[in-house]
Amino acid sequence: AEVTISGYGRFGAEYVENRGAGLSDTIISSRLRFNIDATTETDAGVTFGARLRFQNDDGDVATVGNNARFSASFSGFTVSVGNVDTAFDSVALTYNSEMGYQDSSFGDSEAAFFAYNSKVGPANYMGVSATYSFGGANLYFSYVNPDQTVSTLPVGISEEIGIAADYTAGQFTVAAAFTSDAAGIVGNDIAFIGAAYAINDAANVGLNYYDNGTTAGGVDRGNQATIYGNYTFGATTVRAYLSDRENDPDTAYGIGADYALGEGARLSGSIQGDFNGNTAADLGVRFNF
Amino acid sequence: AEVTISGYGRFGAEYVENRGAGLSDTIISSRLRFNIDATTETDAGVTFGARLRFQNDDGDVATVGNNARFSASFSGFTVSVGNVDTAFDSVALTYNSEMGYQDSSFGDSEAAFFAYNSKVGPANYMGVSATYSFGGANLYFSYVNPDQTVSTLPVGISEEIGIAADYTAGQFTVAAAFTSDAAGIVGNDIAFIGAAYAINDAANVGLNYYDNGTTAGGVDRGNQATIYGNYTFGATTVRAYLSDRENDPDTAYGIGADYALGEGARLSGSIQGDFNGNTAADLGVRFNF
Amino acid sequence: AEVTISGYGRFGAEYVENRGAGLSDTIISSRLRFNIDATTETDAGVTFGARLRFQNDDGDVATVGNNARFSASFSGFTVSVGNVDTAFDSVALTYNSEMGYQDSSFGDSEAAFFAYNSKVGPANYMGVSATYSFGGANLYFSYVNPDQTVSTLPVGISEEIGIAADYTAGQFTVAAAFTSDAAGIVGNDIAFIGAAYAINDAANVGLNYYDNGTTAGGVDRGNQATIYGNYTFGATTVRAYLSDRENDPDTAYGIGADYALGEGARLSGSIQGDFNGNTAADLGVRFNF
Repeated sequence: AEVTISGYGRFGAEYVENRGAGLSDTIISSRLRFNIDATTETDAGVTFGARLRFQNDDGDVATVGNNARFSASFSGFTVSVGNVDTAFDSVALTYNSEMGYQDSSFGDSEAAFFAYNSKVGPANYMGVSATYSFGGANLYFSYVNPDQTVSTLPVGISEEIGIAADYTAGQFTVAAAFTSDAAGIVGNDIAFIGAAYAINDAANVGLNYYDNGTTAGGVDRGNQATIYGNYTFGATTVRAYLSDRENDPDTAYGIGADYALGEGARLSGSIQGDFNGNTAADLGVRFNF
Repeated sequence: AEVTISGYGRFGAEYVENRGAGLSDTIISSRLRFNIDATTETDAGVTFGARLRFQNDDGDVATVGNNARFSASFSGFTVSVGNVDTAFDSVALTYNSEMGYQDSSFGDSEAAFFAYNSKVGPANYMGVSATYSFGGANLYFSYVNPDQTVSTLPVGISEEIGIAADYTAGQFTVAAAFTSDAAGIVGNDIAFIGAAYAINDAANVGLNYYDNGTTAGGVDRGNQATIYGNYTFGATTVRAYLSDRENDPDTAYGIGADYALGEGARLSGSIQGDFNGNTAADLGVRFNF
Repeated sequence: AEVTISGYGRFGAEYVENRGAGLSDTIISSRLRFNIDATTETDAGVTFGARLRFQNDDGDVATVGNNARFSASFSGFTVSVGNVDTAFDSVALTYNSEMGYQDSSFGDSEAAFFAYNSKVGPANYMGVSATYSFGGANLYFSYVNPDQTVSTLPVGISEEIGIAADYTAGQFTVAAAFTSDAAGIVGNDIAFIGAAYAINDAANVGLNYYDNGTTAGGVDRGNQATIYGNYTFGATTVRAYLSDRENDPDTAYGIGADYALGEGARLSGSIQGDFNGNTAADLGVRFNF
């Protein structure tokens, strides 16, 4: 049995064009995240674990823990209960276009779906997930009940069910995910398929494609395609992406760079444009512990 | 000086017959508890300690720490201040009929009394407790002021004072507790007496008797008697109890089993019936760390 | 990368004369403070750090973390961001007249100014500070924006800017601090100058002088002078101070004593009188971990 504390800190300047009337476009944006993990390995080799997270972001007034996640692992198979990681949020590649010290990208899926809640979460939200890893493959399943205490969920609300898989073979990685009634919205079926290619030790390119489903009102969120690449020379990694979403006026883009400071710390910056032509930029430090 | 984090996680299925209109009888019930303990031993051998607890249960939206407990210990004598363990809640045997992965029993005292608050507690609640251990005996004293900031408590509210003792000699253990104005309710005097006998290394039986006092409105909560036993063979322990309370229509009962997984983890289940004939059942895992 | 938990606990009796109608003059006053510090040292020798504090005081109902402080340190130079320590609050000598197990003194500055928030803090409060240490000297700079999200702060509210320095040479220590628009109140400019002399290994005397600025309504808070001394013999340290503030009817005073218990624990008590002639007293234990 052991308890460990891990996480990361990040801070820097964040610029958002046209943030809002009376608002400052540039602020200092920061996050401190502590994960507290407790594990116990039974005589038969099953590892039971539990995680609690304390996260503080700029704009918060205090720091409270989130809801707990419990897990049991054995031979590459892990079952989790509670505030679980969902299949759609866990699969490989989907966040690979992110950049800057805040690891953000307009190329991330614009769909609504459940994910691990880092901060205050909904009451009575209950998830169950399973992952299995073998060779270069990972399989993901997740089930979330938005309110497990009621015998019948309200009209328009449903359980979310997600499946996903990713596989790496040599220089290629492929990933796919499908989630029905995502975010508990009836009829909000979403999908992701992605592929990446490691050209050599230094360069990677990839393409992600999303069916973003619908809003609670049934409005189509539009399909989305994101192409990205990165190149590392010495301590520096440069990154770029383009993302296009149906019906949006502009193509989103981003260019960024990381400079590795060693021991899990890096200086990162990016300039990104959203689907409406507004520019965002960030420059700051992130360090893991 | 050192700081340690300990606690437990538990999760599983909980069934409660007739939980309520529109409610699901079966839910996933879980708890994650972290105790953070800091201690310092002075040159003279007095150990000062402080504890904070962070507990998350199913249905919560977040996790906050409780109020602090401070202690000073020397040669078996411990004085605590703040969010203290009370005599009635600390004495041996009183919770021995509990079973299942949630350690619950309808045979526990139905009385109202103050105890250590694991989560958000009342403001200005202030306790002082003392315990003394010698040979096979433990003595307990506790005092709780429901609101230490006022010079006069409201009518009907009083300080709670509790005393208790337990003693083990060979195969026998006896325990008794008395608390006046329990839970700060004037006139709510409650009592407990219990005895247990270890038949051999594997089998135990015991009897607990409670005077459950009165409600704030002066209604008698009824005397209660609980008989229990358990038997261990290999990694399995089976448990059973019967509890009878004055004026209640049914006799409460429980049968349960634990299967030890090693390293402080166990699989446990129980089927229990309450004083009104409703059935409850649980099956799940608990692991300590 | 490492994560450490440190802090202190303290508890004891606190008497305040004329605490208020219907209130108890004597209560048990306590505090438990946990600091969680994470640090990572980069290859170039820069140390990144982040701190979160969980503090519980008597009268609280629960314990939540405060807002995060981030820092980067190199060769005696430290820059911090977020919930920072301010220059006026960090400079040497200013709190040297404190005594009792609660480390309090009416001789502390009566000015209003920003400082590190140990508990729930204001939203969108953002500070930046820098300190530099060399030889026996420390230089401090701090900047606090009460609300970094708005492009224009409300009328009467401003950023706080503070500078301070302290220097120790042999038996002498001197310190000074100046803060403009302290606590974000336009026109609330405050100052501190202090000097201390170590007569020998056992005895110290000092004088602190404060310009306490104004209230938000423009009322002068009055200049204040505090003279203090302490003397150590064996495990015992006796302390005393006198403080005078313009326009107040009485001279504040304090006499106190600490008894060192070893390993960072002490028994401390004090009797103090405020500027209106009311007496306060405390007696309790504090232990660090």
